[in-house]
Amino acid sequence: MVEEQLKPKAVIVIFGATGDLAKRKLYPSLYRMFRSGKIEDFAVIGAARRPWTNESYRENVEQSVKNIDMRDKDLQAFSSRFFYQPVDVTNSASYQDLNSLIQELEEDFHTEGNRVFYLAMAPEFFGIIAKNLKLHGLKDSAGWKRLVIEKPFGHDLPSAKQLNEEIRSAFDEDQIYRIDHYLGKEMVQNIEVIRFANGLFEHLWNNRFISNIQITSSESLGVEERARYYDHSGATRDMAQNHMMQMVALLAMEPPINLTTEEVRSEKIKVLRAMRSVNPEDVDAYFVRGQYGPGQIAGSEVTGYREETEELQDSDTETYVAGKIMIDNYRWAGVPFYIRTGKRLAVKSTKIVVEFQNIPMNLYYENKDDQHPNLLVINIQPEEGVTLYLNAKKDKVGHAEPIKLSYRNNLTDHGINTPEAYEKLLYDCLLGDATNFTHWDEVALSWSFIDSILAGWRMKRPAFPNYASGTMGPDAANKLLSKNGHHWWPVEE
Amino acid sequence: MVEEQLKPKAVIVIFGATGDLAKRKLYPSLYRMFRSGKIEDFAVIGAARRPWTNESYRENVEQSVKNIDMRDKDLQAFSSRFFYQPVDVTNSASYQDLNSLIQELEEDFHTEGNRVFYLAMAPEFFGIIAKNLKLHGLKDSAGWKRLVIEKPFGHDLPSAKQLNEEIRSAFDEDQIYRIDHYLGKEMVQNIEVIRFANGLFEHLWNNRFISNIQITSSESLGVEERARYYDHSGATRDMAQNHMMQMVALLAMEPPINLTTEEVRSEKIKVLRAMRSVNPEDVDAYFVRGQYGPGQIAGSEVTGYREETEELQDSDTETYVAGKIMIDNYRWAGVPFYIRTGKRLAVKSTKIVVEFQNIPMNLYYENKDDQHPNLLVINIQPEEGVTLYLNAKKDKVGHAEPIKLSYRNNLTDHGINTPEAYEKLLYDCLLGDATNFTHWDEVALSWSFIDSILAGWRMKRPAFPNYASGTMGPDAANKLLSKNGHHWWPVEE
Repeated sequence: MVEEQLKPKAVIVIFGATGDLAKRKLYPSLYRMFRSGKIEDFAVIGAARRPWTNESYRENVEQSVKNIDMRDKDLQAFSSRFFYQPVDVTNSASYQDLNSLIQELEEDFHTEGNRVFYLAMAPEFFGIIAKNLKLHGLKDSAGWKRLVIEKPFGHDLPSAKQLNEEIRSAFDEDQIYRIDHYLGKEMVQNIEVIRFANGLFEHLWNNRFISNIQITSSESLGVEERARYYDHSGATRDMAQNHMMQMVALLAMEPPINLTTEEVRSEKIKVLRAMRSVNPEDVDAYFVRGQYGPGQIAGSEVTGYREETEELQDSDTETYVAGKIMIDNYRWAGVPFYIRTGKRLAVKSTKIVVEFQNIPMNLYYENKDDQHPNLLVINIQPEEGVTLYLNAKKDKVGHAEPIKLSYRNNLTDHGINTPEAYEKLLYDCLLGDATNFTHWDEVALSWSFIDSILAGWRMKRPAFPNYASGTMGPDAANKLLSKNGHHWWPVEE
Repeated sequence: MVEEQLKPKAVIVIFGATGDLAKRKLYPSLYRMFRSGKIEDFAVIGAARRPWTNESYRENVEQSVKNIDMRDKDLQAFSSRFFYQPVDVTNSASYQDLNSLIQELEEDFHTEGNRVFYLAMAPEFFGIIAKNLKLHGLKDSAGWKRLVIEKPFGHDLPSAKQLNEEIRSAFDEDQIYRIDHYLGKEMVQNIEVIRFANGLFEHLWNNRFISNIQITSSESLGVEERARYYDHSGATRDMAQNHMMQMVALLAMEPPINLTTEEVRSEKIKVLRAMRSVNPEDVDAYFVRGQYGPGQIAGSEVTGYREETEELQDSDTETYVAGKIMIDNYRWAGVPFYIRTGKRLAVKSTKIVVEFQNIPMNLYYENKDDQHPNLLVINIQPEEGVTLYLNAKKDKVGHAEPIKLSYRNNLTDHGINTPEAYEKLLYDCLLGDATNFTHWDEVALSWSFIDSILAGWRMKRPAFPNYASGTMGPDAANKLLSKNGHHWWPVEE
């Protein structure tokens, strides 16, 4: 919504420039923005420990974008804007060097003193970098300054608070862009549009017409090379505290009075505040954890989590979490928001299923159990689209069967034209639009909700593994729904 | 709903057995029912003026079903149940002969005295046939007796009343099956199911959420060989009084307490009673008539209606009618039901478009005119299916565009498996289910509504022709909607 016609100008400093995220997401995103003309006056400084040079850095950058529709001329024009600065994030001299380089590039590239500091690295350094940026005057330029940080934002509420205080000592809340890359996904951004741009749905979007809402984010992969990081985190911290809670907030929020950052975030925060907190003693009534054992994925035998590496052999880390979230407000009282996410599940799929109430009287079926409720399905990935399951008469008189109305987002060319999540978020950040980034209040409320679940789990050791690889998770997750008369809708396409 | 598991038994007497309808619709329908095992114990008597024999009749019957997936053995087993009886419908001896033949066949085919009299012929003979059937004892068998009659049912209310009295002097209302073949169409039968078997729609199915409903039945053909009949009828009598009014009734009726014939018809009758009658002086405010002039269809020049044959050269018969029907009840007050039907229009299409109200506030558009209301489209023919137009964000942030969710009834095999309208109606009649036939009260109310329109039109000569062949009708039909801030939605696929 902000400065949409403008081509934002900035020097972008990427801490962690030699890392995986920079390579896989940031350079390709920047390249697409450059190719589509969204940015013209910009330069990128890669900052990391390794003793790279501009040349070796540019080779790496070029390598990372080589799968995108290429023209040599463009590629060179692009990579020539990349500069490498070796840094030791604890060393003052590094920041002074960095500042000199920034100032130099600001002249050359006419970026008007606008600076993005993108922390694409381990969170233990967020605080110290933020402080040093301020201390050494890197925030003293004429333009705007923005700090972009990646998850995880803390490990629980106290550590998140501490991290936030460190960052906030150097940056104001409105200068901080906390990435939740789910908020950059096309169909996650569409939740709000589907709700508020259609005459049909918003009237029905409440506890009188909706039975329950199910959010699934399932992966078929295991932890792979992320084992060490993952084992300290687990599915709940890795996925539920951030992505899943954000989707719940978007699905449940009241219509904002307009689409400004402040209004949208404030509505989301109201949802998070209305979530019924779960007492640690009651955790089993609301949440289910799981860890995968051996099993089969696509016909191949795979090991269990504890066999992935030696370090994991006694691990009690959950690779699966399902939960029932109750939102105790006027609109949602009584409607469970079910979430589930996990690794080594039968399918890879992120999907929202809105299950509407059944019709009040049964005109078309032998008995009530034959009824098929209407479902609105928002397909987030890998397919993107919207599916609506209705009932119609197909052949037999006096009998209704489900029919499927589908819309598939057929921007199949995931090349230059379809912005990916990171591209959209990076561009939003350059435009100063923080709507699709997480406000501190959201982070704090999510942690507060999740901490209580984790505390409940700490009270007893889980009987892991409790689901076989290649299934849809532990049976307790089915019971979680069936005790309310619900069941998980399949997420296969 | 009735006797659904049974295979009904009957002797079926078809008056007009040598005619077009019998050949094109009735024999193929009977053959499909026979092939799919819906009927086993039955015989058909073809009755008409021509001096055919059983053999020549059977040849004709075989000829009429030869395009349907054939097996010689079946075909012979089928046609051997057909018998021909020459009749003069004004001659007593004909009925005595007919009765003897029926009785003989009842023995041979174990049809338990059940008799269907299907009047597939010009309506001027309906009365006399009905009377003679009773007079000569053809209604005196042990089983049930049913009279099936084709449209037109009268030319206006007085003639319809007279016809009805003649028929009713011989048959009870519940023995009379008035065919409206639109009520046999799969997607017309689905109107009720879509409304009442889905949790989504019925809550929105009223004047708070629906802006207007549009029913189009457009043909691209002209009158062709039906010129003489058509010129005495016109689009309003031929299409609006029956098919279009029936669709309005199905769209507007209250949910019946169950799906019995009586309950469904009684709800439809309530709608027809609630239609605001149009004073003849006010006809132009509600209805528009048209007659096609020369033009282009699919690139070829075609003549105007008045040039089709010499008899039509001064004709004021309308080949197009559009109307705004207001239903003055609690649910529909203020919601126009727009109907239009005509010949030589740009496309052949029968379609219902339900236009929902716009969203109450405009979050996603520059100005209110950019809004796209949600549309539910019921495709009746030639495609069968349901389409829903929603809005979603496609690319640009803060901007919503229409997306299309489609379900196409893909029973593509219109061979043995998909019952066509006539097959369904004939089978319903054999089962004694009159739900999808028109009750006298419906006929009377429709005529009463339409007579007033026709009376208004008789007050001045129309300026015909007023639309070119290959367009979507006269401009006045667009003004009819635009004065209410509406417009016709396109009906091309």
